[in-house]
Amino acid sequence: MSPYPNSPLMGQMMHQPLLISSLIRHADRYFGDTEIVSRRVEGDIHRYTYRDCHRRARQMARTLGEFGVQIGDRVATLAWNGYRHMELYYAISGSGAVLHTINPRLHPEQVAYIVNHAQDHYLFFDLTFLPLVEAIAASCDTVKGFVLMCERDRMPADSTIPDLLCYEDLIRWSSDDYEWPQLDENAASSLCYTSGTTGNPKGVLYSHRSTILHSYASAMPDALAVSSREVVLPVVPMFHVNAWGLPYSAALAGAKLVFPGPALDGRSLHDLFEQEQVTFSAGVPTVWNGLLAHVNQNELRFSSLRRVVVGGSACPPAMMNAFRIGHGVDVVHAWGMTEMSPLGTVCTLQSRHEALPEERKSAILQKQGHVVFGVEIKIVDDEGNALPWDGETRGSLLAKGAWVINGYFRGEGGDVLQDGWFPTGDVATIDADGYLQITDRTKDVIKSGGEWIGSIDLENIAVAHPAVQQAACIGVSHPKWDERPLLVVVKKPGAAVSKDELLAFYDGRIAKWWTPDDVVFVDALPIGATGKILKNRIREQYRDYRLPTA
Amino acid sequence: MSPYPNSPLMGQMMHQPLLISSLIRHADRYFGDTEIVSRRVEGDIHRYTYRDCHRRARQMARTLGEFGVQIGDRVATLAWNGYRHMELYYAISGSGAVLHTINPRLHPEQVAYIVNHAQDHYLFFDLTFLPLVEAIAASCDTVKGFVLMCERDRMPADSTIPDLLCYEDLIRWSSDDYEWPQLDENAASSLCYTSGTTGNPKGVLYSHRSTILHSYASAMPDALAVSSREVVLPVVPMFHVNAWGLPYSAALAGAKLVFPGPALDGRSLHDLFEQEQVTFSAGVPTVWNGLLAHVNQNELRFSSLRRVVVGGSACPPAMMNAFRIGHGVDVVHAWGMTEMSPLGTVCTLQSRHEALPEERKSAILQKQGHVVFGVEIKIVDDEGNALPWDGETRGSLLAKGAWVINGYFRGEGGDVLQDGWFPTGDVATIDADGYLQITDRTKDVIKSGGEWIGSIDLENIAVAHPAVQQAACIGVSHPKWDERPLLVVVKKPGAAVSKDELLAFYDGRIAKWWTPDDVVFVDALPIGATGKILKNRIREQYRDYRLPTA
Repeated sequence: MSPYPNSPLMGQMMHQPLLISSLIRHADRYFGDTEIVSRRVEGDIHRYTYRDCHRRARQMARTLGEFGVQIGDRVATLAWNGYRHMELYYAISGSGAVLHTINPRLHPEQVAYIVNHAQDHYLFFDLTFLPLVEAIAASCDTVKGFVLMCERDRMPADSTIPDLLCYEDLIRWSSDDYEWPQLDENAASSLCYTSGTTGNPKGVLYSHRSTILHSYASAMPDALAVSSREVVLPVVPMFHVNAWGLPYSAALAGAKLVFPGPALDGRSLHDLFEQEQVTFSAGVPTVWNGLLAHVNQNELRFSSLRRVVVGGSACPPAMMNAFRIGHGVDVVHAWGMTEMSPLGTVCTLQSRHEALPEERKSAILQKQGHVVFGVEIKIVDDEGNALPWDGETRGSLLAKGAWVINGYFRGEGGDVLQDGWFPTGDVATIDADGYLQITDRTKDVIKSGGEWIGSIDLENIAVAHPAVQQAACIGVSHPKWDERPLLVVVKKPGAAVSKDELLAFYDGRIAKWWTPDDVVFVDALPIGATGKILKNRIREQYRDYRLPTA
Repeated sequence: MSPYPNSPLMGQMMHQPLLISSLIRHADRYFGDTEIVSRRVEGDIHRYTYRDCHRRARQMARTLGEFGVQIGDRVATLAWNGYRHMELYYAISGSGAVLHTINPRLHPEQVAYIVNHAQDHYLFFDLTFLPLVEAIAASCDTVKGFVLMCERDRMPADSTIPDLLCYEDLIRWSSDDYEWPQLDENAASSLCYTSGTTGNPKGVLYSHRSTILHSYASAMPDALAVSSREVVLPVVPMFHVNAWGLPYSAALAGAKLVFPGPALDGRSLHDLFEQEQVTFSAGVPTVWNGLLAHVNQNELRFSSLRRVVVGGSACPPAMMNAFRIGHGVDVVHAWGMTEMSPLGTVCTLQSRHEALPEERKSAILQKQGHVVFGVEIKIVDDEGNALPWDGETRGSLLAKGAWVINGYFRGEGGDVLQDGWFPTGDVATIDADGYLQITDRTKDVIKSGGEWIGSIDLENIAVAHPAVQQAACIGVSHPKWDERPLLVVVKKPGAAVSKDELLAFYDGRIAKWWTPDDVVFVDALPIGATGKILKNRIREQYRDYRLPTA
């Protein structure tokens, strides 16, 4: 039944729904011997193949059926990046249930809230999270069973969790005689809650269709270029927007996968990069900070790594240079959101850029890039009027596409679209070539005398100073200008810099009137569950701060 | 309304139909300055950009609307690869009508049959085909208007075609104030008739959805790897399965396009490759023969060309070596069918192959390759039982996928599927890694003493002989063995080889009993409208041939 009554003649192509199960079946059939390597919670390295993964995913899917899990039921995970989590990605979604990945870094109360809001039927979790699950189990009203993702011999002697199940027992007792069901491609496949800085987390409900289309688009040569020749290590957690889709796109392409487990420190990551000859990785700036510090302090090299994708927050230019110039590793800037599956834009150069001088290339690479085919973007003013693509005009960024949210799970937040577009909450410019640059979050922008000052620009300059580890810039109320920028800084261990030195560092780097009015030095900045600096917390803390210029 | 009643929970992603118009809008928006270069029928070079193409496509779409062309109506083209044809690809399909590309190499009676069968409303054609269209216009019952694709000053003074319209007049008189309509993604978008060797041509009706999914899959890094850094010259005609989808995937990726027009001889192609710095091309073996001959005779080089895709028929190993070893150009073997949009498999190496010796790599590259994600294949015996993937067992090849035919246009040929799979008519092996090798067409296979002899193997050996230009091998009836192979050969100009010398050339290259029983030397082989050797014609001709062994 066509929703478009004016299309009288239908094509005569096969009706094949786009389903997540087809990814792992494809990987098994054509890349059955390709490895999936995982560092486990136990610390050791586990290795097997896509064929093994597909077999165990079918065994677990069969078990879910025997547990009475129905199509559409939510099944939750609290787990690191690893092979068992990968199996659950396919077992749960492939069988028609909804994979609900929970961010374990949230406050236990929030985790319990999410489990209840999602009405999870089962909860699978890594050993690390036994204390967390023990703390919340009694308040998880809808959960019929808890499964600890380990071998029988690692099960706790006793636990406050009733009838705690062992993952490897379930696999051992199950058969792989299981056929993936045919589902509606628009059926829900997975659920991820945004860690909103205000209010309760809200759920984003992906479909099989959105996931497959996102996998195709994100694997394209000008996007993440995922091919069977890559060795992919997703640092970005599988509990955070499906690790940017890499567990799906790697299976689609037949790429070797390397999972780091809980060990995200610089040394552990570098060891794994070298041992498994990783060519391609993806994560947020915070993680790369740790990795680069370890590598530089120990004078190490990357022998196989060619590309890192940086997303989540803007990559400071200093970090980009450390990778590109220091190590010959390409940094690919990407922008996306939980609400966008997540990929919106990727910054790769085009042939027209080849002849440009290195400096101009570098400036382009610091942008968030061009959309992947399937996403559309625009910038608008406060009245919703489209603004020009000139690389200068800043506006609220809106997005749409087949893997962009229509509304939050269970109607939270009401009607979120604006004329059919999703308001991203970002402030951005778009240049004539269609390259996006995020200049701020709508709520972080500093409004000074009716003009906008981009807090990210000010932070990027601060962290380029050799003595600065981290910086946050917020607007503080000012009697004349409404708001003026205040810079909050964490110095590098042992480094020294004064307020005046730091403010002088802005000279020539930015319009004079953008220079912060004051600097505060602190020991640490508040960090949220996905590794981002919580600027609303900082704003609260300095709400009554009196600027020297006031 | 879900056709799968057991999917109670739908994902909450935007409903965005996959539409062909979004490709050209994307190319305009993000690659507006990227060039489309065409050699015209007039012989000169025309160049403009995706932005120009999108503007003129909108102008033509508006004109179609003013002509009263409705959604679902068929609009035909008889045209070479060029920018006006590209505009029609988007104007016709984008506006909701059905682009019907006709192969002008067919017999005029067949062209008229196809126009009437498709019930075309308008017919657009290049100057080259004025005599053809004049010959058939009177018998095209449903065509309301004929449009000659040229400037006003090239229009014939008088023509037997009533009210002949001028393409550039239509563009000039139209406005680009046009919004692409929202359509059902399953709506018909384009129509291509197979040049069946028996019976009337049958129509394959593509949809917007199948075209977009095919564009994504074919552009992937391990498939055709179409990126914005490529300069793509499709030699394969736009009237032949949409030039293997390149007019779509190039727009998706923002690749520069170079169209050769009618000039497919070696010199014209090589000139264009060099002038426009083409990096990537695609076509059938016949065309590459001409190009390689020209290049080798004149001791020329390819300064920018890195890859050619060879499809349509198997690429003889000798040709593959000429490109790879002689010119450092990678040959990518691909297999597909009109009924498959067309892409089924592509032969690219995977990381596990990197360590193999050159000879083993070369052997893999001579296969048709692995499926692109979205297509499934299997080989079966005469009873439809699946056969093993061992690289040895030969069976009938079946395929399915979201861009594979469900049935022919207007029900021709009845129910064509076999248990939901499309029987390709090919005989093939599949190895343990999933690499497909086509060994024959089902109807070309030679059945000798209950065993199958692959005609393509025998032909490949023949054309590897330095004196052989072309070869066809057919089964001829034999009193004892049922059928035995007869080799029909065209010698290279000035070359000499005897029957016995040629048969001795098979020694050690193939099982003794596969060696042909006889050789016939001819001046030419019959070639069909898509450049393939018409083996059914040869079989007819030699039906009563008496083999010396009979």
